[in-house]
Amino acid sequence: MLGYPIAMDFGDPAFLRCIEPDCSSRYPAGERSYSCPACGGLLDLAYDFDLPSSPEAIKAVFKARKLQSEPAYLSGVWRFHELLPFLPDLSRVVTLFEGNTPIYEGPLSSEYCGLPSLRFKHQGMNPTGSFKDNGMTTGVTMARYSGASAVACASTGNTSASMAAYAARAGIQSIVFVPAGRISHGKLAQALEYGARVIELEGSFDDAMRIVRELAVETGLYLLNSVNPFRLEGQKTIIIEMLEQMDWMPPDWIVLPGGNLGNCSAFGKALHELSSLGFIDRVPRLAVIQAKGAAPFYKLFKSPDCQALVPINHPATLATAIRIGNPVSWPKALRSLQWTNGIVEQVSENEIADAKAVIGRDGIGCEPASAVTLAGAKLLVSNRTIDRDASVVCVLTGNLLKDPGYTMDYHSRKLRLETADGERMILVTRANAPERLAADKNLIRRHLKL
Amino acid sequence: MLGYPIAMDFGDPAFLRCIEPDCSSRYPAGERSYSCPACGGLLDLAYDFDLPSSPEAIKAVFKARKLQSEPAYLSGVWRFHELLPFLPDLSRVVTLFEGNTPIYEGPLSSEYCGLPSLRFKHQGMNPTGSFKDNGMTTGVTMARYSGASAVACASTGNTSASMAAYAARAGIQSIVFVPAGRISHGKLAQALEYGARVIELEGSFDDAMRIVRELAVETGLYLLNSVNPFRLEGQKTIIIEMLEQMDWMPPDWIVLPGGNLGNCSAFGKALHELSSLGFIDRVPRLAVIQAKGAAPFYKLFKSPDCQALVPINHPATLATAIRIGNPVSWPKALRSLQWTNGIVEQVSENEIADAKAVIGRDGIGCEPASAVTLAGAKLLVSNRTIDRDASVVCVLTGNLLKDPGYTMDYHSRKLRLETADGERMILVTRANAPERLAADKNLIRRHLKL
Repeated sequence: MLGYPIAMDFGDPAFLRCIEPDCSSRYPAGERSYSCPACGGLLDLAYDFDLPSSPEAIKAVFKARKLQSEPAYLSGVWRFHELLPFLPDLSRVVTLFEGNTPIYEGPLSSEYCGLPSLRFKHQGMNPTGSFKDNGMTTGVTMARYSGASAVACASTGNTSASMAAYAARAGIQSIVFVPAGRISHGKLAQALEYGARVIELEGSFDDAMRIVRELAVETGLYLLNSVNPFRLEGQKTIIIEMLEQMDWMPPDWIVLPGGNLGNCSAFGKALHELSSLGFIDRVPRLAVIQAKGAAPFYKLFKSPDCQALVPINHPATLATAIRIGNPVSWPKALRSLQWTNGIVEQVSENEIADAKAVIGRDGIGCEPASAVTLAGAKLLVSNRTIDRDASVVCVLTGNLLKDPGYTMDYHSRKLRLETADGERMILVTRANAPERLAADKNLIRRHLKL
Repeated sequence: MLGYPIAMDFGDPAFLRCIEPDCSSRYPAGERSYSCPACGGLLDLAYDFDLPSSPEAIKAVFKARKLQSEPAYLSGVWRFHELLPFLPDLSRVVTLFEGNTPIYEGPLSSEYCGLPSLRFKHQGMNPTGSFKDNGMTTGVTMARYSGASAVACASTGNTSASMAAYAARAGIQSIVFVPAGRISHGKLAQALEYGARVIELEGSFDDAMRIVRELAVETGLYLLNSVNPFRLEGQKTIIIEMLEQMDWMPPDWIVLPGGNLGNCSAFGKALHELSSLGFIDRVPRLAVIQAKGAAPFYKLFKSPDCQALVPINHPATLATAIRIGNPVSWPKALRSLQWTNGIVEQVSENEIADAKAVIGRDGIGCEPASAVTLAGAKLLVSNRTIDRDASVVCVLTGNLLKDPGYTMDYHSRKLRLETADGERMILVTRANAPERLAADKNLIRRHLKL
């Protein structure tokens, strides 16, 4: 375990704590450690919270900061820093003004899954197009505080794009490990553009994860996967901001995609802390949705004793952001289910693809992994796990533009299949030849029945 | 000219006015007209402004709305509605909570162009990833008010993506006309996902524009290109929000890309109105930057009499969003130059590509067309048009993810060219075979000098 090369002056309340109940070892927050030196368990950033005023007063402070111009308060993460009090001051935060993401209603999506009170919290509206930015502002800020000269992660794409952007803001070299040929074009382009060194590995995300974890222990690389507990502190604010947008009246359910399970871990921790501190008087239930071909957490949840996750060696789904067979955060995610009376469900590739297109028809674009939420909500309504009158928020995790190839393929297939939706693309030739103009216009008018 | 099929109750102050000084004909704001019936000139939405209070008081109202939860006030467009007062009420606006885009500093970009006080206003952080959303919320809202059953546009991609999303929100069919094979994958995927009917035309954007304009006059299609004056009213708020973010202290220069020139038209109108109404006491100069292969406005600006734009039949640039040879809004854009003492410059493909990569190294992603701004700023500093101590805001118009192919190609070329930047991508094979792990890790460590 490496200590920080520069003196760290952390706020008193923060410390690292092993999440294993039998261990619960505590370590200084400034120690660079990604697992418990005593037992190997995952580490939480924990706090002896000492809030400056009542929850209601702090909520008012959160809101008032929207009118302030300090860079940290332009961020939808640091604006809530009383609930992630690990930095002594906010003057050196690395921010792209992440968070501040919208909540949308989706009439067609509501109808599709049978939930009149359905909403989408769209984390794909973040600066690099995914929820990872919420956690990367905290993770890279810690890397800067720790004097790291290089940061690294294994990634299905979104993490690397986000890490590379924040590392660029901080002036730190970033190195990303990605499974060769298995991340979308757009995400790879982002990492390259933001100056990352990209290492493609033939193998899965899980192979890349294993290598980068070992390298981080053996070298000076600062690891920024979600085993880094500071990442999850930023991701907590997805929940905090959502609740603020809902005037602190929690929904009945929060539905989220399950890949590496960092969000499930962070969301549960956020809800547990908010409830303990008196910010909310009711805890929403989490529903984690996985793709059938990459559903080790679902299998764990359905197992009789719920004791240990069995990795899937060859995870398979077109939703690349959640194509993960050995999610490192599963013990934290399991704890989140316990804290929130949560559940896990799985959906098929067809269900994902169709749900994504329905969300699109509501004018909301998302990447495939995000669409598992609507597919899952539909399934959970149909099997009566979720009541039709429940208020439900689906968290969309990535932007449509993260994976346009998937979208193009989907709509092309529809065309070839001649679905009820009809033809959606036609090719009109030679429209630039003046003598063809009238004929072409007539063709278009006939086609569109104008 | 078609009237509106339903009764329109417009606010008194708004009317349409021909921009040709010799004509200046006035028409009701509710008339569906895209050019002056009297002389064929472009139409402005104009107002007999009757502000409810002083500019300072209205600025305070704008700011206070950030804390309100009405959908219209969550929009960075409608929050400023006193400056675009054409709607009788805001209850039916079609919004995705557009605007609210960040201003970033870019240290490497500043150094690159020699401007310590350089900032980026990033319109690519809009819901569909481009500045078009600012104008589409107003345009589609008008389409809804007018009872339109279908909206249409010609597009290099961003307009169609935006229009399709807002039309989906409004429950209106959208039809987009795009030059075949000349818009990016991502943008086409967006239009399809949001439910647009896509008509690909063999020809240029200008060919598509011509056809859709004629169809809009001949049929019931509601035209949403920037000849629609309501589009430009929304785009004005890019300037209004920028100035609010700068505490209403205008920069010396605003640098923007020049394609169809809608932004130049809207920005000049915004600055002219803000100055006339007393919101600002100084008007920033506009610098419009075009790509050399698609620079008809630059040629007009450099011509002795500045009388008429000569279209370019085969515009050529990899910055597809500004690959436009016959920009419809050029008379309005020319007026904007007059109002702001503005200028036009042109930059090469290499200059665009390099500038884009520099912006990326600042952790800010943009599409190629956006990068003409930094390339132009660099040129204008080097030829002493812009002082080194000037405050300059470059407007980035589109998201990096709009065109990842360009980015991949750029960084691949760099790799092949073996630039000073060194290799940025390597392929490590068989990392998933356990017996290869140690060797692979050593290879990576040697490569990265860990």
